[in-house]
Amino acid sequence: MYAQTKGENMQELQKQLEEILESCRSYTNMGRVADYIPELASANRDDIGICVSIPSESEYGGIWHAGDWEKQFTIQSICKPILLLQAIIDNGTDYVKEHVGMEATGKPFNAIDYSEHLLLREHINPMVNIGAIAVCGMIKADSDQERFEKILSMLKRITGDPDLAVDERVFNSERETGNKNRALAYLLKSSGMLSGDAESLLEVYFAMCSIKVSCRDLAAVALLLAMHGKDAEGRQVIPEDAARMLNAVLTTSGMYDGSGEFAATVGVPAKSGVGGGIMAVVPGRMGIGIYSPGLDKKGNSVAGVKMLERLSREMNLSIF
Amino acid sequence: MYAQTKGENMQELQKQLEEILESCRSYTNMGRVADYIPELASANRDDIGICVSIPSESEYGGIWHAGDWEKQFTIQSICKPILLLQAIIDNGTDYVKEHVGMEATGKPFNAIDYSEHLLLREHINPMVNIGAIAVCGMIKADSDQERFEKILSMLKRITGDPDLAVDERVFNSERETGNKNRALAYLLKSSGMLSGDAESLLEVYFAMCSIKVSCRDLAAVALLLAMHGKDAEGRQVIPEDAARMLNAVLTTSGMYDGSGEFAATVGVPAKSGVGGGIMAVVPGRMGIGIYSPGLDKKGNSVAGVKMLERLSREMNLSIF
Amino acid sequence: MYAQTKGENMQELQKQLEEILESCRSYTNMGRVADYIPELASANRDDIGICVSIPSESEYGGIWHAGDWEKQFTIQSICKPILLLQAIIDNGTDYVKEHVGMEATGKPFNAIDYSEHLLLREHINPMVNIGAIAVCGMIKADSDQERFEKILSMLKRITGDPDLAVDERVFNSERETGNKNRALAYLLKSSGMLSGDAESLLEVYFAMCSIKVSCRDLAAVALLLAMHGKDAEGRQVIPEDAARMLNAVLTTSGMYDGSGEFAATVGVPAKSGVGGGIMAVVPGRMGIGIYSPGLDKKGNSVAGVKMLERLSREMNLSIF
Amino acid sequence: MYAQTKGENMQELQKQLEEILESCRSYTNMGRVADYIPELASANRDDIGICVSIPSESEYGGIWHAGDWEKQFTIQSICKPILLLQAIIDNGTDYVKEHVGMEATGKPFNAIDYSEHLLLREHINPMVNIGAIAVCGMIKADSDQERFEKILSMLKRITGDPDLAVDERVFNSERETGNKNRALAYLLKSSGMLSGDAESLLEVYFAMCSIKVSCRDLAAVALLLAMHGKDAEGRQVIPEDAARMLNAVLTTSGMYDGSGEFAATVGVPAKSGVGGGIMAVVPGRMGIGIYSPGLDKKGNSVAGVKMLERLSREMNLSIF
Repeated sequence: MYAQTKGENMQELQKQLEEILESCRSYTNMGRVADYIPELASANRDDIGICVSIPSESEYGGIWHAGDWEKQFTIQSICKPILLLQAIIDNGTDYVKEHVGMEATGKPFNAIDYSEHLLLREHINPMVNIGAIAVCGMIKADSDQERFEKILSMLKRITGDPDLAVDERVFNSERETGNKNRALAYLLKSSGMLSGDAESLLEVYFAMCSIKVSCRDLAAVALLLAMHGKDAEGRQVIPEDAARMLNAVLTTSGMYDGSGEFAATVGVPAKSGVGGGIMAVVPGRMGIGIYSPGLDKKGNSVAGVKMLERLSREMNLSIF
Repeated sequence: MYAQTKGENMQELQKQLEEILESCRSYTNMGRVADYIPELASANRDDIGICVSIPSESEYGGIWHAGDWEKQFTIQSICKPILLLQAIIDNGTDYVKEHVGMEATGKPFNAIDYSEHLLLREHINPMVNIGAIAVCGMIKADSDQERFEKILSMLKRITGDPDLAVDERVFNSERETGNKNRALAYLLKSSGMLSGDAESLLEVYFAMCSIKVSCRDLAAVALLLAMHGKDAEGRQVIPEDAARMLNAVLTTSGMYDGSGEFAATVGVPAKSGVGGGIMAVVPGRMGIGIYSPGLDKKGNSVAGVKMLERLSREMNLSIF
Repeated sequence: MYAQTKGENMQELQKQLEEILESCRSYTNMGRVADYIPELASANRDDIGICVSIPSESEYGGIWHAGDWEKQFTIQSICKPILLLQAIIDNGTDYVKEHVGMEATGKPFNAIDYSEHLLLREHINPMVNIGAIAVCGMIKADSDQERFEKILSMLKRITGDPDLAVDERVFNSERETGNKNRALAYLLKSSGMLSGDAESLLEVYFAMCSIKVSCRDLAAVALLLAMHGKDAEGRQVIPEDAARMLNAVLTTSGMYDGSGEFAATVGVPAKSGVGGGIMAVVPGRMGIGIYSPGLDKKGNSVAGVKMLERLSREMNLSIF
Repeated sequence: MYAQTKGENMQELQKQLEEILESCRSYTNMGRVADYIPELASANRDDIGICVSIPSESEYGGIWHAGDWEKQFTIQSICKPILLLQAIIDNGTDYVKEHVGMEATGKPFNAIDYSEHLLLREHINPMVNIGAIAVCGMIKADSDQERFEKILSMLKRITGDPDLAVDERVFNSERETGNKNRALAYLLKSSGMLSGDAESLLEVYFAMCSIKVSCRDLAAVALLLAMHGKDAEGRQVIPEDAARMLNAVLTTSGMYDGSGEFAATVGVPAKSGVGGGIMAVVPGRMGIGIYSPGLDKKGNSVAGVKMLERLSREMNLSIF
């Protein structure tokens, strides 16, 4: 019978995830834990977890997982697509596209002394820090405090986790050591791409980066993007074009300077963070959350990328 | 009956293509025809054509077309994925990935006077000229003449068109004015990324860029990539991983500096050329060939992109 | 008699200066007054002044002048050599050379997202903003307030003008609109090239740029550099090697991107500011102060450069 | 008596040179001999020589020397000012300034795929390879063969050495391995900054770089520049403005990326070559030729720079 078959399939998928995780465990000690702040440096490099969220109407519907899937870590750069999503909801895709570039071909900005513009809008991709800060400033709110609460609320709704919160120690460290981001924010201001108070907006950005999430949370966000904005009940909770635009941006720029290689070997939209997380979207099929804090030179989780490579090959996930 | 329904559907699709083409015809005069050589400058800016090739086992199986779909134009940069494909067939994906970068984040190369390397392998994307020339040099042959014939033969087999040939006047002009490409070839040589004679290899590259194709030819190549290397009879004529890698590279870098924007609005792997052609791949579904020589500032056909936008929206083609 | 001859020569020099100024007056309306803040935009483009200060033991010893030589304007970038001078006095030339570059070949800094250093010490020339801010931070003081007073005191001593003061309106505007400099300061901090509070240090820098000076003041500073640190009484008030180093740096980098052209046509160490001033040093012979607020595209006073060209040719001032 | 005094002074200077050379001999083994071609790699790192040429009417008039001052080595980049000199003689300073930049702030050129110019005239300094090749193309002659002979003839006249000749083995190696220069030449052609045949012009350039000279030859050229174009008999053999322009360009850009540091520590116009030579100009006073093939990271002779530092300090040579 169908139910039975489904149950059997489910066990199969669960087993498959566990096998993949175990086969990639040895990669955990090939990466290097981010150490620019002590809170990240203290992560356990042996941790490895995965969570796959599949729509209930599918054959394998449900939430599957293995390893340290419930462990919490800071979201870091994976907040960038969340910020972009909120900015699109507030302003529409056209406005956002006009105000930040979508190209991965980031060009350098030069140290110019007089009378030249430092930045061109088309050069600030929303998946790198400067673009993410610009996008953060586009989110509509009466205050920066409200701005942060608005994004956090959306994230709580999407993940279904009302307890999502900022890791205060990470937040304080990010704020204290965040001078590069501070430089980028003032560069945006000097180019007229940021209104309002830079310091206050940076607080929002640093707080966003410091939210504690688990693989389950990332899989939930990824699933919503995979289903083009429809939740489990089929309600369009975020606009379809916003979801598609995010999936496109993640594909071209989500994995730092490793995006092209990742597209060729894994072939799904994804975003990584230096906290060790990866959020991967399989359009129409599933959302995936990954955690393993050992990073490669480009800032992507080594064991995480390996797990996605195997999963993509075995389950034929590539969109290409 | 099914046959009848299929016939009706077919008429519907044919009609749809014609409507889309007509609705985008006004965009032809918004672009600018490439004019760096007289042969390109003499193109008719009013030309506009489209061809869609769908596997016969599909509901809409067959070749659909509208406008100037049989008109010939030079393939130009759309030969880049063909070169990459042949290089992968000859060397494997791993070798190619190690020897040219897959990242869209092309970094500048500097004018350095002494003792520094000008180029890093990871910076030379196969979809920009320098990378394409490097890739051309990887194709295995006993002579450059043979190298060219090998690629042309493959292209004839894929398109099923034994008459494919070089436009000699375009070839001569490209060769005469091709000093930027000559510079790039010698830059590759000076960095140890090219063996053999640079001038002779450039002849191959210029000849490849000068092959005359029609929308039908581009649609045929695109269909093979869409079907992951399987031809109409289901034979694996190019390796699946090569096809997937090409689709990934086209998505991140196929439309010059407009690749990110194109991914967000159209959402399919594609490659454009300054001759006015666009080859678009819809994985698992269809191959598309486009022609309209008026280009935007980034070098992509204005009307061509518009047709793809409408087609993608109406037929839900986006992979994201 | 000698005295008489001297008097006659003096009249001759005075007359020559006036002639040069008049012959260059027509250039005043070919420049463009800086307008990034309203206080600079309100400058009178017709103003033109020159002051030449020659050691009293020379044949032409004394202070010669023409036009608006007593008019006050803000020193702007001409404070950069003053800051460098104080930093050398406080730390020695070796320390300063190790901590900022002396090369004009400024290389771009890139917008990098993860794990790379943004800046190399050798790239931050003390005559461009980022280097000047770094140099400002090297000046030894117990507080930033004291730091500013220390530099102002030195400037008062050199110019012999106890009334030198900040233009408060310019200072406030610079501070309000100085986000590019703010970005540069935080970039320095993020690269470990700045300790202490960035905002507070920027106050010092903005205040320094806003000091009101006249051609006479600039000529006095230039004379001290020309005499390799010896004042009118022959006392070594600044170290000789500091003076020579400053003259070298001014020659290679003092006139923004026009330094090479200026060296070829005028041939003396000089520094310009967007307020319209130029300070020119003729080693062993004289100091020159210039004012004319119409700027060329590189940020140098148009009429000012023309006056220096004529003066150099007629008086054979070139050091080359 | 004067003659006697002069003789005594001369012995003193001779002794001083020998002392300076000996005190710097230990630096010879701190540099690294250029090894991009075998002929340079085979240089003897222990070699060290100096020659100072002073106008006969001066107190120390004559040619002074120490160490391996007669040893021959290839002129390499020190041919750049010779090429610039001939180009100015043939076209005037204005023409040359309009067609190549004089700024040291060399900006990068980017790998651009479509429709943008790769190069701006103002970015190509005549003291780096690309600018020197452009300058070479400006020299007026009916053929490239004649072009080379014209420059060689001038060099023979200036040095008074009719036997100056090309090192054929170095020339052949330069030509065989000169793909970076080949790339630069085609870049110039593609930007319309070079007419004529690139390969043939490169022959001229490679031949110029391969001329064998000694310290004495370099001192002779430097003396002519120091005397602003007047020879020992007081005849103006090259235009004064050409000599001054050369001295200016050498000061801002003659020592590669070490030009600023060299200006601050030595303070005279100079040009180095990877063959180990340095030509230094002391305006109004003397010409200096140096040889020691061990290079620092920037491509300048380590022991050579040290000798110039000591000589400048002891004889007060700095122009600043």
